[in-house]
Amino acid sequence: MPVESIQWVQDNLRFIDQIRLPQEVVYAECSNLEEVWEAIRDLRIRGAPLIGVAAAFGVVLGTRDSRAKIFSDFKKDLTNTIDRLASARPTAVNLFWALKRMEGIAREKREKPIDEIKDALLNEARRIMEEDRTINRKIGHLGSHLLKDGDIVLTYCNAGALATVDYGTALGVIYAAKEEGKSIEVYSCETRPLLQGARLTVWELLREGIDTTLICDNAAADIMKKKKVNKIIVGADRIARNGDTANKIGTYNLAVLARAHKIDFLVVAPRSTFDLSLKTGEEIPIEERAPEEVKNIGGKLKIAADEVKVYNPAFDVTPHHLITAIITELGVIRVPYEEAIGRILKF
Amino acid sequence: MPVESIQWVQDNLRFIDQIRLPQEVVYAECSNLEEVWEAIRDLRIRGAPLIGVAAAFGVVLGTRDSRAKIFSDFKKDLTNTIDRLASARPTAVNLFWALKRMEGIAREKREKPIDEIKDALLNEARRIMEEDRTINRKIGHLGSHLLKDGDIVLTYCNAGALATVDYGTALGVIYAAKEEGKSIEVYSCETRPLLQGARLTVWELLREGIDTTLICDNAAADIMKKKKVNKIIVGADRIARNGDTANKIGTYNLAVLARAHKIDFLVVAPRSTFDLSLKTGEEIPIEERAPEEVKNIGGKLKIAADEVKVYNPAFDVTPHHLITAIITELGVIRVPYEEAIGRILKF
Repeated sequence: MPVESIQWVQDNLRFIDQIRLPQEVVYAECSNLEEVWEAIRDLRIRGAPLIGVAAAFGVVLGTRDSRAKIFSDFKKDLTNTIDRLASARPTAVNLFWALKRMEGIAREKREKPIDEIKDALLNEARRIMEEDRTINRKIGHLGSHLLKDGDIVLTYCNAGALATVDYGTALGVIYAAKEEGKSIEVYSCETRPLLQGARLTVWELLREGIDTTLICDNAAADIMKKKKVNKIIVGADRIARNGDTANKIGTYNLAVLARAHKIDFLVVAPRSTFDLSLKTGEEIPIEERAPEEVKNIGGKLKIAADEVKVYNPAFDVTPHHLITAIITELGVIRVPYEEAIGRILKF
Repeated sequence: MPVESIQWVQDNLRFIDQIRLPQEVVYAECSNLEEVWEAIRDLRIRGAPLIGVAAAFGVVLGTRDSRAKIFSDFKKDLTNTIDRLASARPTAVNLFWALKRMEGIAREKREKPIDEIKDALLNEARRIMEEDRTINRKIGHLGSHLLKDGDIVLTYCNAGALATVDYGTALGVIYAAKEEGKSIEVYSCETRPLLQGARLTVWELLREGIDTTLICDNAAADIMKKKKVNKIIVGADRIARNGDTANKIGTYNLAVLARAHKIDFLVVAPRSTFDLSLKTGEEIPIEERAPEEVKNIGGKLKIAADEVKVYNPAFDVTPHHLITAIITELGVIRVPYEEAIGRILKF
């Protein structure tokens, strides 16, 4: 049973502190807006779908102490809360999607007493959380048809239970294939600079009893050439209307290599990862993070001269033409992407 | 003036301890065979040309205390020394090339008194060291013609002064271009697992006043797509007769990306890096190193669950068709490689 990354317990948001994995499996708690903002900003809570869920509860925590008696006052508190959460990280669109849903519910209930609006917000956050569980299982079972018994899959960063409520997107496909009796082996890229592959994916896969091998990111081409892997499966942080996909820096790297080695490159993401307001991936805002993440590994090990410049984008964009298929809960999307995205996601 | 990586001082081999860079610039000393073997094995001395130079002095240190009175006895000590050094690392052919040269000198002097043979060995080691200085400057100035003022170069691992006696191969080309008044900017890949790019190349380039930016290895595709670099320059550990090139793991990765982005991919190496006994790169022995190098960064920071399998090859092989040119002290080699290698290197 994949780990549960996030819970709503005794009116607080409880989550596995992902910065401390794999050394310690520790649940941390947020009881107010700033704590949620920081947990997302510092990647204690990470993974596009999970960020969406956490943000929904962030809205609950950020508005529950509002003393507003009328909607226009409550709306101000709500907007401040949403704006604050929206500033935590710019790329994963699930964050904005969840905030929009929460805002929509409040607007829908605008005529109701404030307490009832607060209840509605909590219910909506719970619904987003429960939907995430259902969606990921659905994605998993849809995607597992693309895996054969004996496949050896390369994955990147962490698009597993730890990136969602409890099942994962890219890794959910592998879990579903396993549930169906297929034997799947996995290579995990370590995923510099924050090592989500080494720290999180490896931990999660071993916990599920899946045969796992860790590689440095730069060994990916070598294992493709040596035919050690026959599929690549990754998650996504934002997908434009034409299928261009932003995901963890290095994903585009793998997609180019996959094409050169004629290996299928599969993206796995829920409907909430699509940003249909963007025509292409060039419009996706890409977060650049602090040089220290690269120069000082885990905040503990200095690896380069202090004065060196660092280019540290958190994401890159893979153009749709390098993607074999995008697996969503609504169906598997293939070329021509724009047409298929419109049809399957009904925009 | 690029740093001097290795010196022969008061009958000992003195070298910058490269494991301790960039935190500390410390010279260490070897006074016997085992110390040289360990320094090479543990990458305190690394870089294909530098390994060759160190091995030559390793032969001096391993035989100087020989009590042999006749050549056949001395030959046994020499063979033991050479066999031991040959076992330090398998891929960089410069090691074997230097050992062969040392053995050849001893054979040439076989009729001479043992002390004279010992002197000849020391002289040959010094000659190899001095030749390395000359060769790298020659390579640098030949290669610099391929660089234009304003070029932005991506480099990998460390093929600089620290990989040679004092000037470098890939970085030597950049130093030479700079000496000729060209302004060259450099992006350095950090080069996991041992971070030679972050630790050594950055340190060395900043010391030379070269505008340097550090990236994680997985950001290479992104900077190529964004046209932040227009040339890639790397060193080599062994080059087969057809131009296939073994170099630090991840080099093949970059070569595939360079081709996909139509960026020149240049290999820089002295004649001693060519192994003309090998028809293709598939015959090059590739060293696999300990899982701990990946799982435990710098021996200090554990990044993955202990029980995970790790695939940790130290090198990969770039097929010749992805290489734009190979720059040697004897000339610039281009397709068709086998013909050009035969002509320029005269085999």
